[in-house]
Amino acid sequence: MEQAAVIFQPSGHRGLVPKGVSVMQAARELGEEIETLCGGKGLCGKCKVLVAEGSYPKYGIVSRRSHLSEWQKTEERFITPKEREEGCRLACCAMIQGDVLVYLPEESRAAKQVVSKRARVLPVAMDPAVRRYPLKLPQPSADNPIADLDRLLEALALVPGLKRIVTSRDPLNIFDIDVLRTLTGRLRAENWQVTVSVWMAREIIRVRPGFDGGLFGVAVDIGTTTIVASLVDLKTQTVVATQTAMNPQIRYGEDVISRINYHLQDPGGLEQMGRDVIRTLNDLVAALLLTTWPDDPKVTNGPWLRLEAEDIEDMTIVGNTVMHHLLLGLEPTYLARAPFPPVVHRSLNIKAKTLGLNICPSAYVYMLPIEAAFVGADNVAVLLAETPHRGEPVQLIIDIGTNGELALGNRQRIVTASCATGPAFEGAEITFGMRAAPGAIERIRIDPQTQEVAYKVVGNDVWSDYAQAGELKTCGICGSGILDLLAELYRSGIILKSGAFSPDQTSSRFRTNADTGQAEYVIAWAPETGIGRDITITQKDVRQIQLAKAAIYAGCKILMEKLGADNFDVVKIAGGFGIHIDPEKILIMGMIPDCDPQKIISVGNAAGTGAIMALMNVEKRAETDWIADWVEHVELSTEGHFKQEFFKALHIPHMEDAFPHIEPLVDPKILRPPHGS
Amino acid sequence: MEQAAVIFQPSGHRGLVPKGVSVMQAARELGEEIETLCGGKGLCGKCKVLVAEGSYPKYGIVSRRSHLSEWQKTEERFITPKEREEGCRLACCAMIQGDVLVYLPEESRAAKQVVSKRARVLPVAMDPAVRRYPLKLPQPSADNPIADLDRLLEALALVPGLKRIVTSRDPLNIFDIDVLRTLTGRLRAENWQVTVSVWMAREIIRVRPGFDGGLFGVAVDIGTTTIVASLVDLKTQTVVATQTAMNPQIRYGEDVISRINYHLQDPGGLEQMGRDVIRTLNDLVAALLLTTWPDDPKVTNGPWLRLEAEDIEDMTIVGNTVMHHLLLGLEPTYLARAPFPPVVHRSLNIKAKTLGLNICPSAYVYMLPIEAAFVGADNVAVLLAETPHRGEPVQLIIDIGTNGELALGNRQRIVTASCATGPAFEGAEITFGMRAAPGAIERIRIDPQTQEVAYKVVGNDVWSDYAQAGELKTCGICGSGILDLLAELYRSGIILKSGAFSPDQTSSRFRTNADTGQAEYVIAWAPETGIGRDITITQKDVRQIQLAKAAIYAGCKILMEKLGADNFDVVKIAGGFGIHIDPEKILIMGMIPDCDPQKIISVGNAAGTGAIMALMNVEKRAETDWIADWVEHVELSTEGHFKQEFFKALHIPHMEDAFPHIEPLVDPKILRPPHGS
Repeated sequence: MEQAAVIFQPSGHRGLVPKGVSVMQAARELGEEIETLCGGKGLCGKCKVLVAEGSYPKYGIVSRRSHLSEWQKTEERFITPKEREEGCRLACCAMIQGDVLVYLPEESRAAKQVVSKRARVLPVAMDPAVRRYPLKLPQPSADNPIADLDRLLEALALVPGLKRIVTSRDPLNIFDIDVLRTLTGRLRAENWQVTVSVWMAREIIRVRPGFDGGLFGVAVDIGTTTIVASLVDLKTQTVVATQTAMNPQIRYGEDVISRINYHLQDPGGLEQMGRDVIRTLNDLVAALLLTTWPDDPKVTNGPWLRLEAEDIEDMTIVGNTVMHHLLLGLEPTYLARAPFPPVVHRSLNIKAKTLGLNICPSAYVYMLPIEAAFVGADNVAVLLAETPHRGEPVQLIIDIGTNGELALGNRQRIVTASCATGPAFEGAEITFGMRAAPGAIERIRIDPQTQEVAYKVVGNDVWSDYAQAGELKTCGICGSGILDLLAELYRSGIILKSGAFSPDQTSSRFRTNADTGQAEYVIAWAPETGIGRDITITQKDVRQIQLAKAAIYAGCKILMEKLGADNFDVVKIAGGFGIHIDPEKILIMGMIPDCDPQKIISVGNAAGTGAIMALMNVEKRAETDWIADWVEHVELSTEGHFKQEFFKALHIPHMEDAFPHIEPLVDPKILRPPHGS
Repeated sequence: MEQAAVIFQPSGHRGLVPKGVSVMQAARELGEEIETLCGGKGLCGKCKVLVAEGSYPKYGIVSRRSHLSEWQKTEERFITPKEREEGCRLACCAMIQGDVLVYLPEESRAAKQVVSKRARVLPVAMDPAVRRYPLKLPQPSADNPIADLDRLLEALALVPGLKRIVTSRDPLNIFDIDVLRTLTGRLRAENWQVTVSVWMAREIIRVRPGFDGGLFGVAVDIGTTTIVASLVDLKTQTVVATQTAMNPQIRYGEDVISRINYHLQDPGGLEQMGRDVIRTLNDLVAALLLTTWPDDPKVTNGPWLRLEAEDIEDMTIVGNTVMHHLLLGLEPTYLARAPFPPVVHRSLNIKAKTLGLNICPSAYVYMLPIEAAFVGADNVAVLLAETPHRGEPVQLIIDIGTNGELALGNRQRIVTASCATGPAFEGAEITFGMRAAPGAIERIRIDPQTQEVAYKVVGNDVWSDYAQAGELKTCGICGSGILDLLAELYRSGIILKSGAFSPDQTSSRFRTNADTGQAEYVIAWAPETGIGRDITITQKDVRQIQLAKAAIYAGCKILMEKLGADNFDVVKIAGGFGIHIDPEKILIMGMIPDCDPQKIISVGNAAGTGAIMALMNVEKRAETDWIADWVEHVELSTEGHFKQEFFKALHIPHMEDAFPHIEPLVDPKILRPPHGS
């Protein structure tokens, strides 16, 4: 098949694609994200691109407009004659027939708003904790009958930097007992040729027969609701695969406090929750390994890495403090009791076999350090990835999971806090909430005039107003859809500032549920869905979202006060489950203090990114300990005026004054103050 | 009950005993061993003692002959008038009625020949690997909400010598994960008062509530046949209790080679043998712990230590190389194949939980280093205890177990070797062989005139010629009895130099077994036994003993040659199972090259002693590594003339010349050359 070179600007993504594919297909293949509502059907006109005419010696191509297929009638509907003159085309209509350089105008770029579930990988120097050394050993003889281990150590002593392993008389941390147990057979399996894996230049964690330079690790982000694991090739610094699972502890409680309560009520609860999450981690690792094998076992060639459990020689884990403690079997009770002391604070290196993890048994699992009871290793990882401590700009970083974690500051000083948002933004406690699986509504727009709803579901590029009946198989609303909801409902006049449904409804989508007697608004009609029922948003759902956003807003206010800052240079929204952030909606709903929407950017699963960075580079691990020690944690529950700020922040959009005219939104008893105070 | 002070000299044993007990009973109570044949019945006259008349301000007593009960008629039979004038009494007849200082003449001391199953404890400076620190911590407060671990470390940092634990950023070896898992509850159980156990000033292995200064460890000697475990109070440097068990691996083979073969034949064999020995170690520890509890649980006071598994915070293990490898699950195959490389050579510190040992789970088990495939950690421990490397005298040390291990030399140079004695000296492969249990014959004398047999059994002080019918419940011959046999049979003319029964038998004890057709000699008649059968020694038994002693003799010759020594200053016989050594018999049977019998002494379970010394003192552990590196191992199987020496050494007593006139003792095919060459 003939191929053509395609270069996208300004991203720089480039590669070869088969001739005949559309510019949109090429973009997908090369990792470029182009905005589309109709999913490439030529219906929405959102995917305008500019094609360059000229020679690009830097890239070795000559780009011609004539290298694309002929102009189509569809394109006339969206592209003005002037734009056409400038080389504008619709990416879904133009087929590639030769080399082209394609420029994406700002409005056609989806990347800013659409965050992949995969953690971003930031540039990190290659400096993994584990290094592999191929060795050829002399065979034992009557003149040289030394122990197998000594034979190995003598060869290893010749490797620069490893001499101290051999000369040390310290019998700890030089080798693992499991290495000894398999050593004899492995040394002899390939005629005394072996590959030795050494952790931190101090311990042999694996000896395998033959020469093999591959090196792999897994980075894990344990959220209260979702667990994400990424398989990383530590030689090429690339994420090979990512797998996601629900946190199985959800059955014991949606949030961290209810899991601690489960432990207090059930004597075996702590052990059980630990076992459950370990089992899930093992499932995730198994799934990651499976992606490296061909489906057809008869396939003998191809790019398959064919990894086995033992090939995973390093692991990093981040998570909030309660997830951290439950995983390790550490007593979590006092995390919920003032003054909230955790059991341990510093980072830990724990053998995989000690935790029961099915990777290389002697490998060390690096648990990032935690800051405090409610600002955990996940926040440390976010800071590691976003580096506010390295620059002058004041960053406000908001990590939205089942708990909201906030960090504010720059290289002078950083203050952090956690606020109990509840799991609303993860889809829990919302009537049709669900996790980000195919069919889950992840973005919503409501027309202010018609109050009609358009939405997009996970796993499909088509917006509902361009989709055929039943095409989307909609089944619920996931976290990122929920983040859109409050702003869209308010902007279209469906709800009031108080969050209550407006008494003046014009759309037939508004109704009172016959069973519950509650007001609700239909997001998707039964025929559009895969569940055969209308998907709605209820008054109670709206109130849950209000509680969540108010907790974040109030936390931001307290931190600004602590830092003595009345402003910030950038707002980074992080979230572990794939959020499509629309800055305006964030501001409209009043989730953060007012600012220029341009300052708001989404950084995706920054905690996962931090975990990957720590996996790739041991210096980054040292940095996490420094971060955890250095940042100042603010305990919101002991800040006298936090509740006041919280109640003020419930309405939409935020107003600086108290608002006695607004009716109480919820019974104050059901308001969840931050963690158990 | 009124008490009297009794002091024994020259041993210095002393203490209080109730008035009215005999001197012999007092001796037993205070750990003094007095020779007796009749078991204290006043029949043998062996227990002569001298009672001092005078004041001993050093001990705070006045010793009077009148402090003993009146002179008895029985005593006249054994004590001359002159002896009586000197203050001589029979220990079994004289009852204590006041303070006395008792001197034991050489001939009345049993200690030189009777070796307790307990390892001797040599004076060792107190320097245990684990130290305990009582700490009182400040409670957490809003001003000081640091992690529980950091709170503990801050307090520990004030202990001299431990600061580096706290200041270290190294997350390894500072604390065990299991310590973290229980930390929170234990800190709070006694109001923030805790006792912290720190291993080698580098790792917290236990935190327990309240203040408790006790410190205990267990020293283990894993023999091919027998396992001995001693509970040691590391604060008082005393052995609290000793327990012995058969090595359960015996079911897979009597000697080390057959166990390696079992592993080769059975894929799960290695794991199974490891599991079995760990289970036995756990049984032994449980039995040791039980000795520290009163039988009646209602007893609330008394001297009971009431130890639990977690109170055992240190353990040392010695054993031959195969036992070492089987315990740890290390591949033993190549121990039996030239050039016999072991898997590991150096000492190891391994977590108790890694091995599945039921002591403090975070405690480290110290495995002494090994020298070579057939000279293991047990020999290192023997050298540690007997210190030939520290002095000028040339020591010949023979450790008799299922394998014989030899060491020869002084501080200039030491050579070691192993010789496959087979398990004859442990009672195996002998028709009526048994382990050293009650009823086992442990010493034998045969009258050269009458060829009548007298013997003593384990658990009873009475010799058979003084015993009532059926009193001894004899049931077999244990290792130490077997050691006497060859010399006694030869000395009394029952066997010839070749080991064959003499054709000129005068005793009715000699007969041909009707079932087997084999010649045999009756040691105990059926009515004397507890098994209702005559206990005999057969021609085949005699030959097994010859094979064993010849292996030792030949090994000694080779080592003397290697060292260039034609003599030695002392011969130390060590054995793990309670051997009563009679130097003359050792020489008569030709087990070692000729020497002055005065040079031969028994040092008992020296390997166990070495294990206890390493338990008490970390400097001794460093010394073991030095010893294992420094001694020169001689592989007998590669010494060309070993077999020649071996065949020469089979006869009794040894003659320097070949002896073509003696018929072959055994089919050469069944002669066991040393380990698999």
